[in-house]
Amino acid sequence: MNLIESLRQLIPDTDRVTANETIRNQHSQDISSYHQPHQPDAVVYPKTNTEVSQIIAFAHQHNIPLVPFGVGTSVEGQVIPVKGGISLNLTMMNNILDIRPNDFLVKVQPGVTRKQLNLALKEHGLFFPVDPGADATLGGMAATNASGTTAVRYGTMRQQVLGLETVLADGRTIHTGGLAVKSSAGYNLTGLFVGSEGTLGIITELTLRVYGIPEWTLAARAVFPDVGAASNAAAAMRMCALPLDRIELVDTRTIQVVNQFKQTTFQEAPTLFLEFSGTRQAVEHDFTLAQQLLQEEGSLDIAYDTDTKARNELWTARHEAALAFTASAPGKRLLSTDVCVPLSALPSAIVNARQAIDEAGLDGGLLGHVGDGNYHAALLIDPTNPDELTRAQHVNEQIVHYALSQGGTCTGEHGIGLGKAKFLKQEHGDNAVQLMQAIKQLLDPTDILNPGKIFLP
Amino acid sequence: MNLIESLRQLIPDTDRVTANETIRNQHSQDISSYHQPHQPDAVVYPKTNTEVSQIIAFAHQHNIPLVPFGVGTSVEGQVIPVKGGISLNLTMMNNILDIRPNDFLVKVQPGVTRKQLNLALKEHGLFFPVDPGADATLGGMAATNASGTTAVRYGTMRQQVLGLETVLADGRTIHTGGLAVKSSAGYNLTGLFVGSEGTLGIITELTLRVYGIPEWTLAARAVFPDVGAASNAAAAMRMCALPLDRIELVDTRTIQVVNQFKQTTFQEAPTLFLEFSGTRQAVEHDFTLAQQLLQEEGSLDIAYDTDTKARNELWTARHEAALAFTASAPGKRLLSTDVCVPLSALPSAIVNARQAIDEAGLDGGLLGHVGDGNYHAALLIDPTNPDELTRAQHVNEQIVHYALSQGGTCTGEHGIGLGKAKFLKQEHGDNAVQLMQAIKQLLDPTDILNPGKIFLP
Repeated sequence: MNLIESLRQLIPDTDRVTANETIRNQHSQDISSYHQPHQPDAVVYPKTNTEVSQIIAFAHQHNIPLVPFGVGTSVEGQVIPVKGGISLNLTMMNNILDIRPNDFLVKVQPGVTRKQLNLALKEHGLFFPVDPGADATLGGMAATNASGTTAVRYGTMRQQVLGLETVLADGRTIHTGGLAVKSSAGYNLTGLFVGSEGTLGIITELTLRVYGIPEWTLAARAVFPDVGAASNAAAAMRMCALPLDRIELVDTRTIQVVNQFKQTTFQEAPTLFLEFSGTRQAVEHDFTLAQQLLQEEGSLDIAYDTDTKARNELWTARHEAALAFTASAPGKRLLSTDVCVPLSALPSAIVNARQAIDEAGLDGGLLGHVGDGNYHAALLIDPTNPDELTRAQHVNEQIVHYALSQGGTCTGEHGIGLGKAKFLKQEHGDNAVQLMQAIKQLLDPTDILNPGKIFLP
Repeated sequence: MNLIESLRQLIPDTDRVTANETIRNQHSQDISSYHQPHQPDAVVYPKTNTEVSQIIAFAHQHNIPLVPFGVGTSVEGQVIPVKGGISLNLTMMNNILDIRPNDFLVKVQPGVTRKQLNLALKEHGLFFPVDPGADATLGGMAATNASGTTAVRYGTMRQQVLGLETVLADGRTIHTGGLAVKSSAGYNLTGLFVGSEGTLGIITELTLRVYGIPEWTLAARAVFPDVGAASNAAAAMRMCALPLDRIELVDTRTIQVVNQFKQTTFQEAPTLFLEFSGTRQAVEHDFTLAQQLLQEEGSLDIAYDTDTKARNELWTARHEAALAFTASAPGKRLLSTDVCVPLSALPSAIVNARQAIDEAGLDGGLLGHVGDGNYHAALLIDPTNPDELTRAQHVNEQIVHYALSQGGTCTGEHGIGLGKAKFLKQEHGDNAVQLMQAIKQLLDPTDILNPGKIFLP
């Protein structure tokens, strides 16, 4: 109890420093991934930058591992305290600090979730576009450089984060970036912290870009005879440079589990979910062109909606696909691949992936943000069944190796965490990984910040 | 001659290793800035990554400063070898290595210029959007995180560079990024090299995003009674979230020198130059809305063109504004400010800047990429007249201090180089600058790569 007592000298509020078994258990794993849980020794809920700074300085002094935790929706084990220590739960730092409608900017604390932010932005006619599906915290989304369905139009977190307040491993606070939408003033430290998965510092404040809600939005579904045709259509849509907000592929198996989970009646066939936005005239014109193209690429059926409720239902179905998979097989956990390939390699990558899943005799679906060449194989596995885990890992490796052979990446948006560390050198080469490790060593010489992540031990 | 002889052992081609006085002089300064020239001891023209690597390894071994040089269009003294040594002219590395139309990607060597790339892309229906005005090399543009007129739509170099091949200070080559349009695989090293102004490594290859040439493009000019009204209109255009490709402010003095230099007849009043692109229907619809808005904001006259020749003439006039200024006063050089402010602070920033120039009794114009809150005061100065230089520096400081007080940056796109180093701490704070210096020390422990830049001595 020494650790708890020491931490309570920093944060006297006993509810916010705990070794409670249930709470430690909640912080031992993420929501759905297959990674082995591991409990922290203590869970701390800071409310201010100063408290974060004090806790990190304490951890630094006593060489205690420290792992940031938002709502636990990361999928590569990023939040698992593999070496014990402190789980730093940032959900009490959930204030929206400033909304500047005329500057298209907001300042938020790291525990604000994307849905919370969008609710607050709505009355200003604004929205925050990055949409990984889960209602993740913005701090967590920055830490993994999350993206999701809208990246094809708005880019990833890296394009939205203009500035950060971050506590370094020694407890000092650093401010990077600012309110200007572009800057060439020195090294891009903001871009270094974004995607560093809590291994270089703990984010305590973010300045983010936000956007005007478009005048008119149209969501559409296009059904295809097979996954290859759907992938070809996705690539073709991008190549004709139609302005798309979202272009998502969902395969038959995914539609099946979604229908079951959400009581929906989507046709059980490979489908592209699409979204267009802008002025009404432009959207209608673009969608007419898109329909022609989708038909040329073999779409069997195209449906669309423009009212908000119907559109939300469609995207909720898409967003809850991962949840639908885990709900379809109680006790099972998800292994989700996350490669991103150049657009021309997408159709072959998708077809190969579907084949690999079937050959391995696994239950799983394909879905993804195919406008960017990013897709996931969601594989259902019993983590206590070593054979099933091995087969799923093998499928993951096949998918990653193909992506890397095409110049792609092993992770488009989930990050490295525990699960992709073995691919890092293969993707980047020795010199790049060595430089990443030197930067880690420079910023966190005693390896207290989220140790065991990104790099192989 | 020891240095030259040693370098010729690495590159036996005598033309490519020289101490010729004229050539050294050409490499002692940039094209138009006020910074004090300083000659290199040798100029080397490598043709391959291997040659670059050998030269850097040699420089590392003998502790010789090494400064990369493209076409010398940077404006903060980035290319000036303030400590002598080797000027590494990369213009012989000007091959376009790969154009992948279906992936919207190209691979180029660092000496390829943006116009050269666009000429090659045209037959594929593609273009590279980043447009700093000058026909800069892509390596140089990446090194300063250049942007320009189209950043409001396409972003800066940082958003276009997907991957880099870079030679480190010890001669090793590092590959960062890849062909995927997004990645969360480890630390963002590509983003660290972009904007590092040759101080962390020498870029020998770039993978860049390219885009489809829009179906329809419309360029327009809107004339205003004063610079305040023009700035307000620019901010208003952005706030209504109309999709704009470019929105440029040019003040009266700038129009005057352009008219004189280009024999054009633009009305000599503050003007917004605008560009819209997309499908013809969308562009026409958006421009109709824009016209209403511009009139509401007090525009006296609006003209537009859709044919390529007329549009090119308009943008050539805008692009050659800096050249027009130097041509208008032979012997004088340019001091160009480069702040970027949040959109809401733009009108006051512009009005204050115009006042500061007039009060200082200087000749100069205001122009800039106001859709991003980025603008330049182009000040004509006689670099041998200490009083004029002092007054111009004072105006620069006033403009920078105002921008920083609004949360802006001292440089939106030119970089720090020599001229902005004094503002770096004020903008970022001690901890951030200390971390930048630690990263510099990590990557270039003996300070041979472009020494004297970014950080104050």
